[in-house]
Amino acid sequence: MKKLLCGVFAILLSTGMAFGAGPPFSKATEECITCHLSVYPGILADWEKSRHAAISPLEALKKSKLERRVSADKVPEELAQTAVGCAECHTLNPEKHKDTFEHEGYRVHVVVTPEDCAVCHPAEAKQYGQNIMSHAHGNLKKNPVYQGLADAINGIQVPRGMKTTLRPPDAETEADSCYHCHGTVVEVKGEKARKTAMDEMVFPVLSGWPNQGVGRLNPDGSMGSCAACHTRHAFSIEMARKPHTCAKCHKGPDVPAYPVYEVSKHGNVYSSLGKEWDFRAVPWMVGKDFAAPTCATCHASLIVTGEGEVVAERTHRMNDRLPWRIMGLIYAHPHPKSPDTTIIKNKAGLPLPTELTGEPVAEYLINATEQEERRRTLQRVCLSCHGYGWVEGHWARFENTVRTTNEMTLTPTKMMFSAWEKGIARGLAQNDSIFNEAIEKKWVEQWLFFANSTRFASAMAGADYGVFANGRWYMAKNIQEMADWLEFKLRGVHEGKHQ
Amino acid sequence: MKKLLCGVFAILLSTGMAFGAGPPFSKATEECITCHLSVYPGILADWEKSRHAAISPLEALKKSKLERRVSADKVPEELAQTAVGCAECHTLNPEKHKDTFEHEGYRVHVVVTPEDCAVCHPAEAKQYGQNIMSHAHGNLKKNPVYQGLADAINGIQVPRGMKTTLRPPDAETEADSCYHCHGTVVEVKGEKARKTAMDEMVFPVLSGWPNQGVGRLNPDGSMGSCAACHTRHAFSIEMARKPHTCAKCHKGPDVPAYPVYEVSKHGNVYSSLGKEWDFRAVPWMVGKDFAAPTCATCHASLIVTGEGEVVAERTHRMNDRLPWRIMGLIYAHPHPKSPDTTIIKNKAGLPLPTELTGEPVAEYLINATEQEERRRTLQRVCLSCHGYGWVEGHWARFENTVRTTNEMTLTPTKMMFSAWEKGIARGLAQNDSIFNEAIEKKWVEQWLFFANSTRFASAMAGADYGVFANGRWYMAKNIQEMADWLEFKLRGVHEGKHQ
Amino acid sequence: MKKLLCGVFAILLSTGMAFGAGPPFSKATEECITCHLSVYPGILADWEKSRHAAISPLEALKKSKLERRVSADKVPEELAQTAVGCAECHTLNPEKHKDTFEHEGYRVHVVVTPEDCAVCHPAEAKQYGQNIMSHAHGNLKKNPVYQGLADAINGIQVPRGMKTTLRPPDAETEADSCYHCHGTVVEVKGEKARKTAMDEMVFPVLSGWPNQGVGRLNPDGSMGSCAACHTRHAFSIEMARKPHTCAKCHKGPDVPAYPVYEVSKHGNVYSSLGKEWDFRAVPWMVGKDFAAPTCATCHASLIVTGEGEVVAERTHRMNDRLPWRIMGLIYAHPHPKSPDTTIIKNKAGLPLPTELTGEPVAEYLINATEQEERRRTLQRVCLSCHGYGWVEGHWARFENTVRTTNEMTLTPTKMMFSAWEKGIARGLAQNDSIFNEAIEKKWVEQWLFFANSTRFASAMAGADYGVFANGRWYMAKNIQEMADWLEFKLRGVHEGKHQ
Repeated sequence: MKKLLCGVFAILLSTGMAFGAGPPFSKATEECITCHLSVYPGILADWEKSRHAAISPLEALKKSKLERRVSADKVPEELAQTAVGCAECHTLNPEKHKDTFEHEGYRVHVVVTPEDCAVCHPAEAKQYGQNIMSHAHGNLKKNPVYQGLADAINGIQVPRGMKTTLRPPDAETEADSCYHCHGTVVEVKGEKARKTAMDEMVFPVLSGWPNQGVGRLNPDGSMGSCAACHTRHAFSIEMARKPHTCAKCHKGPDVPAYPVYEVSKHGNVYSSLGKEWDFRAVPWMVGKDFAAPTCATCHASLIVTGEGEVVAERTHRMNDRLPWRIMGLIYAHPHPKSPDTTIIKNKAGLPLPTELTGEPVAEYLINATEQEERRRTLQRVCLSCHGYGWVEGHWARFENTVRTTNEMTLTPTKMMFSAWEKGIARGLAQNDSIFNEAIEKKWVEQWLFFANSTRFASAMAGADYGVFANGRWYMAKNIQEMADWLEFKLRGVHEGKHQ
Repeated sequence: MKKLLCGVFAILLSTGMAFGAGPPFSKATEECITCHLSVYPGILADWEKSRHAAISPLEALKKSKLERRVSADKVPEELAQTAVGCAECHTLNPEKHKDTFEHEGYRVHVVVTPEDCAVCHPAEAKQYGQNIMSHAHGNLKKNPVYQGLADAINGIQVPRGMKTTLRPPDAETEADSCYHCHGTVVEVKGEKARKTAMDEMVFPVLSGWPNQGVGRLNPDGSMGSCAACHTRHAFSIEMARKPHTCAKCHKGPDVPAYPVYEVSKHGNVYSSLGKEWDFRAVPWMVGKDFAAPTCATCHASLIVTGEGEVVAERTHRMNDRLPWRIMGLIYAHPHPKSPDTTIIKNKAGLPLPTELTGEPVAEYLINATEQEERRRTLQRVCLSCHGYGWVEGHWARFENTVRTTNEMTLTPTKMMFSAWEKGIARGLAQNDSIFNEAIEKKWVEQWLFFANSTRFASAMAGADYGVFANGRWYMAKNIQEMADWLEFKLRGVHEGKHQ
Repeated sequence: MKKLLCGVFAILLSTGMAFGAGPPFSKATEECITCHLSVYPGILADWEKSRHAAISPLEALKKSKLERRVSADKVPEELAQTAVGCAECHTLNPEKHKDTFEHEGYRVHVVVTPEDCAVCHPAEAKQYGQNIMSHAHGNLKKNPVYQGLADAINGIQVPRGMKTTLRPPDAETEADSCYHCHGTVVEVKGEKARKTAMDEMVFPVLSGWPNQGVGRLNPDGSMGSCAACHTRHAFSIEMARKPHTCAKCHKGPDVPAYPVYEVSKHGNVYSSLGKEWDFRAVPWMVGKDFAAPTCATCHASLIVTGEGEVVAERTHRMNDRLPWRIMGLIYAHPHPKSPDTTIIKNKAGLPLPTELTGEPVAEYLINATEQEERRRTLQRVCLSCHGYGWVEGHWARFENTVRTTNEMTLTPTKMMFSAWEKGIARGLAQNDSIFNEAIEKKWVEQWLFFANSTRFASAMAGADYGVFANGRWYMAKNIQEMADWLEFKLRGVHEGKHQ
C-alpha cells in the first residue's frame, strides 16, 4: 500500500519500524519516511541521528531530575511511546496553525513553533517567552527609533542632486537583513499547486519564509523559533552548546560576542581542546565534561560540580544571568524588566531605556537588588574555576568599562547636539531621522560598534578585541574625526554667511 | 648502490618497497625517496598519507563509476601498476616542461601542472580549463581597467608637494599581492648551482615562484595549479572539500564567501558537528556523510542521495552551478560565457561586463535560459534538505538583493560622474585612473566590498554579515560620506572662483 | 581529620592518594584537594588531566634528552617523587612572594610565576627572561612615546567647545586594555577577610588582578606569566602549540599573525587536517606528528625529522628565529638586541628603534650577521617541507615587502611633517602628543595596522590578507585621504588669513 502511495519510491516498511534499538515510529511518521527517504533525504538523515529518533518521551520521562531534557510532567498518551518523528511535530495543534494543509491524508503544518515544542518542553518554552529574544521582532518593528535606524540601513538611496533621498526598504530586503535574526512575520498568503515526484500537490505559500529568527511571528500566533539554536532536524544539544550557534547572530560589530569569545582565554581553551569535551552530557559537569565555558555554560545550561551540586539552573530566559544590557542601545544600562521593550518611554518621550544623555529610565529597568542577584547567579559559574579575588577583580574592571564607555558615548552625543542645534545636521527638532547623515552614522558607530565591542571585550576577558579591533582605538579616533567634520561643516556655514 | 648515491643518507631499500599493503613504488620513485627521506622530509611524510601512495591507477580504475576519482579510461601502462609517486608526476612530459632539469640521472621538473595531472584526471583538467579561475592571471593582467586597479593598490605613492605620484609596483609585490591568488607567470630564468647535502647540483631558477594561484601560467604552457585546492603532497579530498581551502582566496572583503559561510546556519552546523562527517567518501552522500554543505558540496562535488541517486555531478568548472557573478565587478551580472573575460567590451569601449550604469553587456554573458539551467542545477542540492517553498523563498530574496545592491551601486556611480564632470575628481575623460583618488576608492569599496558582501550574505544565508559586517550599513554610510566629500570639495572650487 | 578540616565537604582520602597509575600526591596537596574538590572544582579537574598530575619530576628526568620537558638537571628532593600538585607550586619561595598568606596551616601564594616554574624548567625561564615579551610591561609603560599612544587610546575625551580634552585613563581601564596582554603590576594592596564555605578566612588583595599578560610584574619580583600560553591548570603542551593560544594577543589589526596564518596554506592545512595530528609528542616530528606548521613550530618548538635529526632547538626566547621586527613600530627594522627596549634612543632623542624617517638606529639593533643567522635558523624549518628555490623565493618576496611597506610609511610621515610645520596639526614641536588628532590617528593606522598587516601577510604567505583585508588597499587609500584632509584643512588656514 505504501508502495502505491509513493509511486516511484517503492519501499516496504513493516509496522513497528525503528532505527536500531530505538522506539517504534508512529504509523503517520512511517508514511512520511516512506516518501521522504527520496524527497528531501537530508532532513530524514539528520533526524535519524537525533535524540528524538532514539528515545520515546515515555523513556525520557524516566530519567532522574538532573538528567531530564523533557520538562513536562506528562506527555499526551498518543505521543508517549513512539519516536518523536515527522508527524508528531508537524501535525500538532492543527487548528491553531494557519499553515496547516492537507497532505496525503494528514493535516500537516510547515512551521514547527515553540508552542508545538512546549508539549514536551513547557518550562523551556515558557522561559523563552520571557526572554527578550522572543520579542525581537516587535521590539524592532514597533519601536520608531530603531525602525528609523533599520530604514536608514536597508532603504535605497536615490540620487537627488548631489544628495540622496531614501526609498523605504522592500519586504524581501528586510527579511534578508535585520529580520533574518530578529525574526520575520510568517503568514499564509495563499496556496500553490506543484507537480511533485508523486502527483500534483497543493502547498501553502508563506510570507517571510524561510526564517529561523529568534523572534519569528509564527502562523499559530506564537513567537520565536527553537530551531534558531536547536538546528533542525538533529536538534543537537551539542550544537546549541557550541559557540558557533550563538555566533550566527552575535558576531557582527554590533554584537561581537563570538569574536570576543574567540580571542579570550576561554575561547582559546575551547578551540584548542574542545574536541575532546562531552557536549551531550546532561547535566553538564564542570571540569569533567568541559574545561572552559562556551556561551551556553554561562548563560543557559544546567551546570553541576563533579559532586553533583548544581552550580547554575538551566534557563531559556537568557537574561536571568545578565545584570546589564551592554549592546544595541546608545548607553549600557540595567536590563529591562519586560521582554517587550516597546513599552519603554524616556523623559524626552523616546522609546529608549536611557535619556540621550545616558541616565537610565529606572522604572522600566531592573533595580540594583535584581542586578546583584543576577550578577551572583552568573558569578557562581565563574567561581567553578576561579578564586573570589579573580572574579571580583574581573567584575570591577567590567563595570568600570560600562561607565567609561558610557562617558565616551556622551562626548560625541553632545557633539551631535551641537550639530543639530547649529543646523549643520538635521535631527529630531527638524523632524528628521537621527541616523541618516554621515555624521550621525559616525555617532551610531561610537555606541553600536565601538563602545559595545569594548564592553563585550571587557565582559568576556577578550581584551585584545577591545583595544585595536573595534574597541577603544576607534572610540578615540571617531570623536576626533567628528570634531574635524564639525569644523569643516561649520566653516561652510560661516562662508555661506559671508557670501 | 643507493647508499653510494646518497652519501650520508644511508638507507637500503629493497625493490618493490611500498607502504603497508599499498602498491609497489617505481624504481625512480624509490630513488627519490632514498634521499628525500632526509631532504625535505615533510614532503615525503605528507605524500605517504596520500591516496596516491595507497592505490595504483590500475586499481583505481576498477572502482565503480560513482566511486572513481580517476576520470581517464586508461592510464599509460608504465604508470598503471605502481604508486603515484615523486617520479610519476615530476618526470611527466619532460619536453614540454621548460623547468625540466637533469637530477641524479632523471629529467625532473619542479612545477607539476594541470596537464601533468590530466594523465589520470583528464575530465577534471578539461573542466578546470573552462573554469574562469584557470584564466585568473590573464583576466587581470590583460584587462587595462583591472590592471589600473591593481596598480593603484600595489604601486608606491611618492610624495609630490601635498599630493603623491604613483611608482608602478615591482614584480615581487605583484606576486605577493593579487597574483598570489590569481597566479603568477612561472618561467625559467636561468640555472643556479648549489652545494647540497650530497654534491653540488644545478637547479633551474624560476620567476614568480613559489606560487599556487588558480590561474598560474606554468612552464609547460598550461594554466592553473591543482595544488591551489588539492594541497601538495597529500592531495587530500578531505581538505579540498573543507571550506578553509576556499577561504585561502575567498575571505577578504572583496570576496567574503568564507566569513559569510561561517556565520550562516550551514557554517554553524559544519563548525559544530563537522568533525564527525566523512569528508573522504566518494560519492558524497547527503545526510550520511555530511549534514550541511561546505563550498564543495554546492559548487563542485559529486553528490548522491542515500539511495544512490545523483543530486549533482562533479564539476571543476565551478560556474556550472552559478547563474550570477556577484563579485569583483561594479555590478552583479549574468555569468560570462567564456572563461577568458578579456574579450568583453561594453558600449563605452571598456572591457567590462556591464556599462558603468549597470546594464549587462548581453552578448558576452549567459542568457536567461542558461541562467535558469544553472539555478536549477544548484537548487537540486538545496532541495536535498529543504522544501520547495524554502528554496524558492531563499532564491527570491537573493535575486532581490542582486537588484537592490546594483541600485545602491548606481547611486554613488552617478555621484562619481558628477565629480568627474565638475572636475573635482579626474577620471576617464581626463585620461586618469578611476581608482587612484580618495573619493574613487570610496566608490570602489561600495561595490567591491559592501555590495559584494551583501550579495554573498544573501546568497548563502549568512545574513548577519550583510547588515553591520561590511554590508548594508556601510553601503548607506559610504554614500553619505561621499555626499559630504562632494560638498567640501565643491566649496573649494567655489572659493577658488571667488578668490 | 580531613573531614573535620573541611566541614561540609566530607571526603576521606587515604595517604598516598593518586590518580590511576600516576605518582603519589604530597600530603599538602592532598589537603588542598580535599576541600577544593568542592571549592573551585574546575581547577582541580583541569589539573587532573595535566602531565603535572601524571608524572613525578624524578620520572620526568629519566626521559632521553630529546623527550625531556624538564630542563633542570636535578629537582629538589622534596619535590621529586610526588605529582606536581597545588602545594608544590603555590608554596614555593614563600619569602620572595609578597602575596604569601597563611591558609589552613600552609604559607600559600596566589600568583605562580616564572621563577616558581624555574625550579623544574630553568632553561625555559631563563630564555623567556631574554625574550622581548617578558619586558612587555616596562617597554610600554616606561617609553614616553608609546605611553602617549596608550593614553590617547585609553583616556576619556571630555567635550570642550567643539573639541575635546583628554582625561588620563584610570588603572582599571589600562589593565583591561593594553596591559591585559602586556601584563599588569600585581602588588599586594592589603588583605581582606571573607566568609567561606568553611570558616572566615583572610586573603591578600591584589592590584592588577586577574592578569596573565606576557610581561606581568609579579609579587615575587619576577616578570611574565607562563600561563599566558601554558594555560592553567592543565598546562597542556597541545594548547601552547596550537595557534589559538598565540591568537589571544596576536589577532588584532596591530599584530594580525593569527588571521594571516588562518588564511595561509599552512593555516588551511591545520584547520582541515590538524585534528588528526599529535600535538603532545616531544620531540615534535615533521610529517609524522604534523603536516603543516603552527606558530610554535616556526618560532618555539623542538622540531626533529623522521630520522631524529634536530631541525630546530626549543626556545622560549622567541626572537631567536626572527631577523626582523615587523610590528608595533613606525618602520620594520632589525630586531633589538636587548629585550629592554627602553634603553633605545634615536638621533632625534626619541626612544624609537628608527628615526621618524625610517633609518634604523643601528647600535641598539642586531647586525646583518645576526640577522642572517636568525634567518637561517628559521629557514631550516621551512626546508623541512619546501625546496631551496621555494624558500629563497618566499624570503626575497618578504624582504621586498619590508622595504616597500617602509616606503609606504615614509610618504604619509612626510605629510605629517608638513602638517606639523604648517601648524594644521600639533606635534612634537608644539609639545603635543603625535597620536591624539584625527590626522595623526590616520598616520598611526598606516604603519600600526596596514603596513604591519601587509608584512605579516607576506611573511606567512597569507597574501590574501595583505591586499584587501587591512593591507595594501588601505595603505593606498589612507594616503589619499590624508591628502584630502590636508587640502581641506589648509583651505581653512587660508580662509582664516583672508578674513
